[in-house]
Amino acid sequence: MDQQKKRVVIIGGGFGGLNLAKYLDKKKYDVMIVDKNNYHSFAPLFYQVASSGLEPSGITFPLRREMRRGRMRGCRYSMGTVSVIDVSRKEVLTEFEKIPYDILVIAAGATNNFFGIEGLKDHVYTMKSASESIRTRNAVLYNLERAAQCDDPEERKALLTFAVVGGGPTGVEIAGALGEMKRWVIAKEYPGIRPEEVKVILYEGTDRLLRTMSGKSSADALRDLGQLMVDVRLGKTMSAYKDGELIFADGEKVKSRVVIWTAGIVGNPLTIIGSDVKAGPGGRYAVDEYNRVEGLEDVYAIGDISSHADERFPRGCPQLAQPAIQQGRCLARNLNKGMLAEAFNYRDKGSMATIGRNRAVVDMGKMHISGWTAWVAWLGVHLVTLLGMRNKIVVLINWIWSYFGLATSLRMILKPNKEPHTPVTPAPVPPVPALPGDADYRGERGKD
Amino acid sequence: MDQQKKRVVIIGGGFGGLNLAKYLDKKKYDVMIVDKNNYHSFAPLFYQVASSGLEPSGITFPLRREMRRGRMRGCRYSMGTVSVIDVSRKEVLTEFEKIPYDILVIAAGATNNFFGIEGLKDHVYTMKSASESIRTRNAVLYNLERAAQCDDPEERKALLTFAVVGGGPTGVEIAGALGEMKRWVIAKEYPGIRPEEVKVILYEGTDRLLRTMSGKSSADALRDLGQLMVDVRLGKTMSAYKDGELIFADGEKVKSRVVIWTAGIVGNPLTIIGSDVKAGPGGRYAVDEYNRVEGLEDVYAIGDISSHADERFPRGCPQLAQPAIQQGRCLARNLNKGMLAEAFNYRDKGSMATIGRNRAVVDMGKMHISGWTAWVAWLGVHLVTLLGMRNKIVVLINWIWSYFGLATSLRMILKPNKEPHTPVTPAPVPPVPALPGDADYRGERGKD
Repeated sequence: MDQQKKRVVIIGGGFGGLNLAKYLDKKKYDVMIVDKNNYHSFAPLFYQVASSGLEPSGITFPLRREMRRGRMRGCRYSMGTVSVIDVSRKEVLTEFEKIPYDILVIAAGATNNFFGIEGLKDHVYTMKSASESIRTRNAVLYNLERAAQCDDPEERKALLTFAVVGGGPTGVEIAGALGEMKRWVIAKEYPGIRPEEVKVILYEGTDRLLRTMSGKSSADALRDLGQLMVDVRLGKTMSAYKDGELIFADGEKVKSRVVIWTAGIVGNPLTIIGSDVKAGPGGRYAVDEYNRVEGLEDVYAIGDISSHADERFPRGCPQLAQPAIQQGRCLARNLNKGMLAEAFNYRDKGSMATIGRNRAVVDMGKMHISGWTAWVAWLGVHLVTLLGMRNKIVVLINWIWSYFGLATSLRMILKPNKEPHTPVTPAPVPPVPALPGDADYRGERGKD
Repeated sequence: MDQQKKRVVIIGGGFGGLNLAKYLDKKKYDVMIVDKNNYHSFAPLFYQVASSGLEPSGITFPLRREMRRGRMRGCRYSMGTVSVIDVSRKEVLTEFEKIPYDILVIAAGATNNFFGIEGLKDHVYTMKSASESIRTRNAVLYNLERAAQCDDPEERKALLTFAVVGGGPTGVEIAGALGEMKRWVIAKEYPGIRPEEVKVILYEGTDRLLRTMSGKSSADALRDLGQLMVDVRLGKTMSAYKDGELIFADGEKVKSRVVIWTAGIVGNPLTIIGSDVKAGPGGRYAVDEYNRVEGLEDVYAIGDISSHADERFPRGCPQLAQPAIQQGRCLARNLNKGMLAEAFNYRDKGSMATIGRNRAVVDMGKMHISGWTAWVAWLGVHLVTLLGMRNKIVVLINWIWSYFGLATSLRMILKPNKEPHTPVTPAPVPPVPALPGDADYRGERGKD
């Protein structure tokens, strides 16, 4: 390490961290990304992994590979989950090592928020990482196989009821994908299951889907999901998931073996030593207009784990890829200048969600489009923003295949195998204070 | 099920089972494949999954998808691991159900044989399934990350020593792939590791590599591996792997955190009720020239798990894809005729192994080729035999990418997540007798 350079440690190689690392001046800064995964994930497409449309390899990109060239050249990567930030010593702690910093940027992102609801954490399926998405895919396919072998009508019904909780973009997208599976795949590949036996139910707590989008988008999504035979239930709040049964606030009970939870996110938990600063509602760190964490020095937060309340966004920016990307780039510009000259100002480029083949909704400013045009726009935007040419090509081929084949061919139950062995010599990690559980963060629900 | 049709149950959807199912006359037979995986795997390319060259999705193919059309149309699939064959009741038992048969074909294939050597089963990495190969890939990448963080020279050495045991085709192929990683990837992506620190060692018990192939192939493989900086040690027999240390029969000890075992296979264990018939050496069932299991009625065995000793092959056919494919097709022809008219006669189409970019060896009859021509032949044969057009295209793109990029871009440590939840109601499985452990099968070593 060059002694003249300041050491910038970035926790997390997601959209925010990656863009910050890319645009930071490597002549001025020694940049290190710390992430538990050695790859960047394209989170908006996790639901396609869960619905057998794409492989994780199509939407993930090794960080070291990215650091070989272009703007990322010169960045370094260290594997590990940061659990503790010691602001008094200016270092972060992972399970493997202590890493000193001059400037720290928390870009650790968010994970699932179960709001402490009984039975959720251990029994529902989620899609906040590639591994979680594969697990969801496995569960869907496993239950179809079990149903095909099952004669008991009650049991069959529970196995074939796929419940999606949360009517945000992710919930709408996975429900649509499951609806397409019901419509196009079941009859052709599961002779022992009648398509009408498969129930896909989407539960949303408020009175409309996609409530961060326009009313037109909500209405179009509702119509499109209906055409895909997805049963949408609005105004339904979950109170528990117990013994394979979903229980709602209004007393309704529904048996389902696969409950996919997309109804809440919370910032990844971190413990700060040497200061009283804690994450606020939703596990998000309060930051000022330059993304400085309030109450800390030389510590910034960007993306889903940060929150700056202003007139436009009283609860902070929406937790999406775009704000994270823009914050990462804005912070890079400020740090490169050596002064906080530019206050962050989110430029909303619009939002979109896909519901299935030829079906999507797009809001851009006051403009709303839906149907085939929106769907093609959705494909294009996602393909262009995906990292790596190989990934783009592989994803495109998969999409073309699905489009003309009316079915995906990735329906493998790839069972997890054992983890890599832990090293014989334990890594030298200092004792770490207990981490807050997610029950401590009963904040506002996130983007979904 | 049509009552007139005889029910053929095939245990295993590998090369043998799949080809049998494909060519059986569906007007005469009701065909069911029982397999623990809902997909067929192209086993010859597992080593490329382990070395980050290919994704499992490129070399696996969902069985139900294959059963939609063409020759497989009309076959059925049931998920499960067959543990017990009850020949008195003519049924097989899986963890989920009992399946009755009129004709049973054991095509369950082979798994790793550790010959009861201390420490192997729990501590080495293997490549006999897609999951095992991903686990091996994760271990290699994980150790590189740990080494990059490690200052202790002893520890670094152990982390960066990759030992491959077994000089058959799989061992040669994975050693070559690791050699290429050492040569092309380490310097570019791991600034904290010098390429010369990485040691790839291939251990073989006999005095030559690829001993099922020609002497020329053995010599060429040895030379090519040397050029890839793989350290080949012939005449080395392992006696234990203890505390992260390989111990050889001659007393040599080598510290290595990743030991990849390719030195033995054994037929997947099955228990037969109602007969004294047991698997013979190597866990293989002795069959006659029509692949009938000796001593049983209406039970056949094909592929790696079967063995017919004759003058040409006193220990049975080589355990490779070709004999399994040919046995499956031959048995289908016999069953379709309703009489055992055709004795199985293995047509050796030649054998090949790849060592790396532009390097391979091919034996066809008395002909031997090596180098670029052999490598292109290897690519072509594997691409043509791979199931599914989408798979062929995706694999080809990955190969082209690796070829021109001199590096693969699939180096993600995709950590396993939890298994799908077990059903709330336990599946109705009858009590099953204890299965023989692999230590009971100290037979001859298999193809590697």
